[in-house]
Amino acid sequence: MSKKDRIEAKRLKGFRDYLPDLMAERWRIIDIIRAEARLAGFHTIATPALEYAVTLLGSGSDETDKQVYRFRDHGERDVALRFDLTVPFARFVTEHLNDLAFPFKRLQIGEVWRGENTQKGRYREFTQCDLDIIGVDAAAADVEVLGVFYRILSRLGGLRFTMAVGNRLLLSSLIRKALPQSDETSALIAIDKLAKIGREAVCELLGGGAEAEHLLELLTTKDPSGDTALAALQDYLAGDAAALREIERLKLVMSEARAAAAELNEGGAGRLLIDLSIARGLGYYTGVVFETTLDDLPGFGSICSGGRYNHLASRFSSRELPGIGASIGLDRLLAGLEELGRISKASHNLVFVAIASEDAFSYANSIVRQLRAAGLASDLGMQPKLGNQFKHADRIGCPLVVTVGGSEVLSKTYSLKNMRTGEERRDLPAATLVNEIRRLLQ
Amino acid sequence: MSKKDRIEAKRLKGFRDYLPDLMAERWRIIDIIRAEARLAGFHTIATPALEYAVTLLGSGSDETDKQVYRFRDHGERDVALRFDLTVPFARFVTEHLNDLAFPFKRLQIGEVWRGENTQKGRYREFTQCDLDIIGVDAAAADVEVLGVFYRILSRLGGLRFTMAVGNRLLLSSLIRKALPQSDETSALIAIDKLAKIGREAVCELLGGGAEAEHLLELLTTKDPSGDTALAALQDYLAGDAAALREIERLKLVMSEARAAAAELNEGGAGRLLIDLSIARGLGYYTGVVFETTLDDLPGFGSICSGGRYNHLASRFSSRELPGIGASIGLDRLLAGLEELGRISKASHNLVFVAIASEDAFSYANSIVRQLRAAGLASDLGMQPKLGNQFKHADRIGCPLVVTVGGSEVLSKTYSLKNMRTGEERRDLPAATLVNEIRRLLQ
Repeated sequence: MSKKDRIEAKRLKGFRDYLPDLMAERWRIIDIIRAEARLAGFHTIATPALEYAVTLLGSGSDETDKQVYRFRDHGERDVALRFDLTVPFARFVTEHLNDLAFPFKRLQIGEVWRGENTQKGRYREFTQCDLDIIGVDAAAADVEVLGVFYRILSRLGGLRFTMAVGNRLLLSSLIRKALPQSDETSALIAIDKLAKIGREAVCELLGGGAEAEHLLELLTTKDPSGDTALAALQDYLAGDAAALREIERLKLVMSEARAAAAELNEGGAGRLLIDLSIARGLGYYTGVVFETTLDDLPGFGSICSGGRYNHLASRFSSRELPGIGASIGLDRLLAGLEELGRISKASHNLVFVAIASEDAFSYANSIVRQLRAAGLASDLGMQPKLGNQFKHADRIGCPLVVTVGGSEVLSKTYSLKNMRTGEERRDLPAATLVNEIRRLLQ
Repeated sequence: MSKKDRIEAKRLKGFRDYLPDLMAERWRIIDIIRAEARLAGFHTIATPALEYAVTLLGSGSDETDKQVYRFRDHGERDVALRFDLTVPFARFVTEHLNDLAFPFKRLQIGEVWRGENTQKGRYREFTQCDLDIIGVDAAAADVEVLGVFYRILSRLGGLRFTMAVGNRLLLSSLIRKALPQSDETSALIAIDKLAKIGREAVCELLGGGAEAEHLLELLTTKDPSGDTALAALQDYLAGDAAALREIERLKLVMSEARAAAAELNEGGAGRLLIDLSIARGLGYYTGVVFETTLDDLPGFGSICSGGRYNHLASRFSSRELPGIGASIGLDRLLAGLEELGRISKASHNLVFVAIASEDAFSYANSIVRQLRAAGLASDLGMQPKLGNQFKHADRIGCPLVVTVGGSEVLSKTYSLKNMRTGEERRDLPAATLVNEIRRLLQ
């Protein structure tokens, strides 16, 4: 192709390529999520990236609607790329009601797209890992969802995190009691801004006065166990039977979640706190809500959040489908790990088989096959010059290079270089190959 | 939400939901692909679903261009969803030239979108699994790519398949020699239709006559080893040095690929044939090409195909990037397995822990945690009635149900029901739990 016809190789702003090292870390996390989900009895599903626009729009906030990638397809259908995995899941559940056994425990991992302003650690395409339990409104489900995410985050390797647990039902009860004249939605919006604009400014938004002050006092009481905060709440909401039941349930859920955390080998890596000020926007939450932040990256935002919603599929069906679910933002988590310097060069222990002369081609291939049959990852030299093959083996980080040429073919031997120590040995009998490589890789 | 505001739960035509059993099979295949790719030294990358339209369009055929989902994004940029993983890979390689070591061995698994007419086993969204080696034009790379796909397909479990290997350079040489007056492109289009319209009709499209007859004779000679076909080719192309070198290389590649196939435990599940009539459309191929069909599903089409291209990134860069690559169409493969009745109910060996009374909640949770800490997948009863919990455990296929109630809490015991035999035992000491479950699951 002539130079003037060439196109600039450029990806869209807000979109990301994954190079091998970062991708290896991505797979490591996905495999942990899959393993923990399987252990806890979750089942994996998938839904399409594209849906009818009407399926997706009007289900989140106006802001989300504006960010949706929406267009006409070849059949002039009004379609859109999913902006989360929850709305398509509601569509999925309704469409497959008879094929699913409830309570249904879902794992779904998939990309979602939002045309939002790009900023550090925020992309227009990102991968969500959702775990939900739908079909029951039970403390057991709350415990399971908090527990599986806690286990996943603990297994990432010494990552210090805080899961802050709130409750939307209690927050609503509190607002109704403290500010009976106020609009609940406006009050929630104001409280949602606590971390951003501070207590004083929120108090003003709530109309000021002693009742607003007292409400904020109750929301921001933080003691390690949450006992003081909940006791104060119990006193304040003494006449509200539903709220009192919810407080008992929250205590039970937290006590089980903490027992689970304490039993883990990595126990202590994650803190479990009660934070009654968590509103999680204006979403569909009706009970427990939670957010997870990285202790070593204050201000980075939540990497894992969700909560209880009791009307998942109400846009599609009359069937009551209470549920609880949450999501790990994989790309945000990876961005966080990058910022913490936690992404290392992937160590793949790849054995390189170099070919010193053309007549050793078949022999080299048989050696590669032997290694792979023994489960040892290996690569084959493809460049004409042996020197270039060694350079390549070094660049891709192979710890060992096996070399074969015409004389090795005749004597059924091989040479072996340890790239870390520089040590080189010649004329090793072919029969020793697999054991020798295994020994050196240990 | 009132009934009249409800939306029909309906996915787009040509798009597919994955329920848990099919999804488990999908992950099983993906894990095999990842394991074999790792063993052969491939590295995983990822690119975005959306690209500038100019990056994607004009790179495949006009037909592909028409099928692309293309639209204006929020910034009025002309964007499109990728229709394969090869064109974005060319963009990726050019953009990251300095971060990659060549030869670079890529694995990429991702969804692609084509607004084509829907038919059985063909979807508008489908997942491709691509393996490529770029940066060298070497027989070693051809052997590696054929070999890794052969190993993957062999490991799927007794699947009978045929990999048919052709060569685009030889096909072009043959056309030039046999039909010097003809337009090569038209001739390729005609030959590409052999399987569909038959030899006689293709002969007519090629202008008829003895030379066209002879060409088709050479292309359709099929003997198990391919030796006869290649010998006839050698005679016919005796004066064409480049073609003769290519024949020698094809022999070498086939002999190594066959040696690898013979060594596999599953040896014999897949046949490796030479089929010189394979054209693989008008694409960018310049050497080896191959297609893979399922022996038990004639007419189903190729589930794994690709070949050598020597100008991967020429639209973006002056850098020569010869390569070879191929792709497994995961959804087509799954559709094939479904048609063969090869998707079974996923067996997850999930142990169900049922709760007979509310006061056993914490105890039940501790039992679930014990099982999971021992690596035993388990589910927790969430419905108020014990009978419903048992029904659920049965429906989701749990082989064992542990039951605990108030009396078990006091005596630190549990009841155990084997759902397969119906056998039930009571008052087993809690300390025996993990060993007992392990024993029964074996």
